[in-house]
Amino acid sequence: MTSSTSTPALLAASVDALDRVRSTGPLVHCLTNDVVVNFTANALLAVGAAPAMVDIPEESGIFAGVAGGILVNLGTPHAEQRAAIEAAVAGAAQAGTPWVLDPVAIGALPVRTELAHRLRDVGPTVVRGNASEILALAGAGAGGRGVDALDEVDAAADVARELALASGAVVAVSGPVDLVTDGRRTARIANGDVLLTKVTGGGCALGAVMAAFAAVEPDPFVATVAAATTYTVAAEVAAEAAAGPGSFAVAFLDALASVTGGDLRTRAALS
Amino acid sequence: MTSSTSTPALLAASVDALDRVRSTGPLVHCLTNDVVVNFTANALLAVGAAPAMVDIPEESGIFAGVAGGILVNLGTPHAEQRAAIEAAVAGAAQAGTPWVLDPVAIGALPVRTELAHRLRDVGPTVVRGNASEILALAGAGAGGRGVDALDEVDAAADVARELALASGAVVAVSGPVDLVTDGRRTARIANGDVLLTKVTGGGCALGAVMAAFAAVEPDPFVATVAAATTYTVAAEVAAEAAAGPGSFAVAFLDALASVTGGDLRTRAALS
Amino acid sequence: MTSSTSTPALLAASVDALDRVRSTGPLVHCLTNDVVVNFTANALLAVGAAPAMVDIPEESGIFAGVAGGILVNLGTPHAEQRAAIEAAVAGAAQAGTPWVLDPVAIGALPVRTELAHRLRDVGPTVVRGNASEILALAGAGAGGRGVDALDEVDAAADVARELALASGAVVAVSGPVDLVTDGRRTARIANGDVLLTKVTGGGCALGAVMAAFAAVEPDPFVATVAAATTYTVAAEVAAEAAAGPGSFAVAFLDALASVTGGDLRTRAALS
Repeated sequence: MTSSTSTPALLAASVDALDRVRSTGPLVHCLTNDVVVNFTANALLAVGAAPAMVDIPEESGIFAGVAGGILVNLGTPHAEQRAAIEAAVAGAAQAGTPWVLDPVAIGALPVRTELAHRLRDVGPTVVRGNASEILALAGAGAGGRGVDALDEVDAAADVARELALASGAVVAVSGPVDLVTDGRRTARIANGDVLLTKVTGGGCALGAVMAAFAAVEPDPFVATVAAATTYTVAAEVAAEAAAGPGSFAVAFLDALASVTGGDLRTRAALS
Repeated sequence: MTSSTSTPALLAASVDALDRVRSTGPLVHCLTNDVVVNFTANALLAVGAAPAMVDIPEESGIFAGVAGGILVNLGTPHAEQRAAIEAAVAGAAQAGTPWVLDPVAIGALPVRTELAHRLRDVGPTVVRGNASEILALAGAGAGGRGVDALDEVDAAADVARELALASGAVVAVSGPVDLVTDGRRTARIANGDVLLTKVTGGGCALGAVMAAFAAVEPDPFVATVAAATTYTVAAEVAAEAAAGPGSFAVAFLDALASVTGGDLRTRAALS
Repeated sequence: MTSSTSTPALLAASVDALDRVRSTGPLVHCLTNDVVVNFTANALLAVGAAPAMVDIPEESGIFAGVAGGILVNLGTPHAEQRAAIEAAVAGAAQAGTPWVLDPVAIGALPVRTELAHRLRDVGPTVVRGNASEILALAGAGAGGRGVDALDEVDAAADVARELALASGAVVAVSGPVDLVTDGRRTARIANGDVLLTKVTGGGCALGAVMAAFAAVEPDPFVATVAAATTYTVAAEVAAEAAAGPGSFAVAFLDALASVTGGDLRTRAALS
């Protein structure tokens, strides 16, 4: 962690944010891809939030004003969903609802890349991606070949900070060590497990959990760090009981539901 | 249970209906939401039915004449699926195929609310929802903020009976105690577990299981009670082995596949 | 196994192909149905491949040139996805990318049946289906009532060989004993477990795994046999630890991730 918030303060704030997610059950509106939508809803339920996937344009703008947080994930951007995303983002702006942008696999694929750049300029609260996606969103790098991170998180750190300052969004780069920055403050979270990359939606559902934390914590930098810490600590707990990716996914949902502030205090590798 | 069918007779009929689902493997045609479609198919397979999700308008009407039962769930009502629903419902009417309507999250969201009211008037065999959705479908109450039940089941009991009488459908209200009524007869099922609300599709898949039972049992009230009893008894069995929502969902599918008539006789809390 | 490749040679080639999937992580582009898309992605990740589901027409053709293998599955052929399939198949032809066609539930359902016949004539690398689907694709038989196999694999053997010779595709017929033929060579794989039919996507995900193997093994007959053997041996391993379809699906993903060449050598029932 650098500047203005100490690591212990950030950890205490993360524990507090987790408690508030659990006690208030924020409604999270997800416009996300077909592949991970089930896992995403289950991850939200497990952590204590209430998921709702309203992705038709006639309803998504209305719902953006009702929800506590919104996820916009570009993994399978069908035409009707793209229209629903535009309506949701407009509704979010009007209602002041925080929203998370996950620019899945942008770079070489034209529809999602153009849409991601446009959404970046509308002003997401948080942007989450792997290093190659963050580079592509910032206009640097070649973009991904899908959901893999071909670039290292550290290589993306400077670009992430610049993107945060230019866009006003907190930027989270997922990788072996997660990085979260608002341009001024930067935190690294060295928790997690490689099995999380062997379950589809391991990254995408984190974007939804960030939206849940942003619904209850007014500082988006704190919310994003708290979400990433909760999520990756749960992954560590789950990995201890897993025999492979199938049992890991199950144990991960159990761990997301049972992880406590005490677990964060004991296990978080925040810096 | 009130009037015309005794509780012991209803339990015996439920056991019999479960046996027939297992021995005949009814084909259930699901037009349902993206979030729960996988879990719904797996729940149908587990209980002994055969799922098929045919949700394009050029095919859904044809398939409605082939299937033994149909589920219409409005969770993510994309434009193409809405057309497919209209075709399926018309096909069901022509072929006499029983169908279940699940009016997910109606109330404030205009497209699904208008569609649900129209479908209600076409004559579903069964309507399943939480209390707030049933109130909204009946034209009472404010509707849901998503898939949560903000109203209590008991508060919805009178409205459910009136809705049943007015629409001709059996009405099932899901909650801590499930209520099933055809307007004249009312049953309560006090089985289940709160973990079922922590798995996405916990309610939606029940609608599909009701369609499977309606395919083999000509009295829709009996079919609906039998489905809800089988489903919630399986949930109880599963909860005994679960460490959280992830392991619960797995154990629930195992329990749906193994629950016996004997388990229903021992555990059903029907009244 | 008949003609030109001995069974021991085919087994050795299968072990080698599995090693190459694991070491190279081929990118598999899936245009598949909503019901099984999550399970399919997880099966690909488990076996060592990298899934990506790019199913909008503006992007799928581009991605077909980047991917190592492609799956086209017709389970829920929405209009936008149908256009994306056409673009992907054209992109595959241009780039020489191998692709697998899974003609889910063709026969009575007009849109997918017409599309499947057209795609058959474009020249898929592999066709995978149950016996009734293969019969329907060849223009014989009545087609399926969904995803069930109403015809026996052996009844489809001659038709499968003729289809392979006429289309140039390797044809794989899934059933209690899987059959793979390129018209000249025919292999039977007697592994697997009935629980695989109780998990939705049990067949569909195999088509994706075949695309992963076709990405690394230039002989599509060998690739298809290797994929089916790996997949069904993993199912056998998983079934030993399963209490029902829920725990089987979890154990299956674990087994797909851990199955070794040694397991294939010990367990494969190839002939």
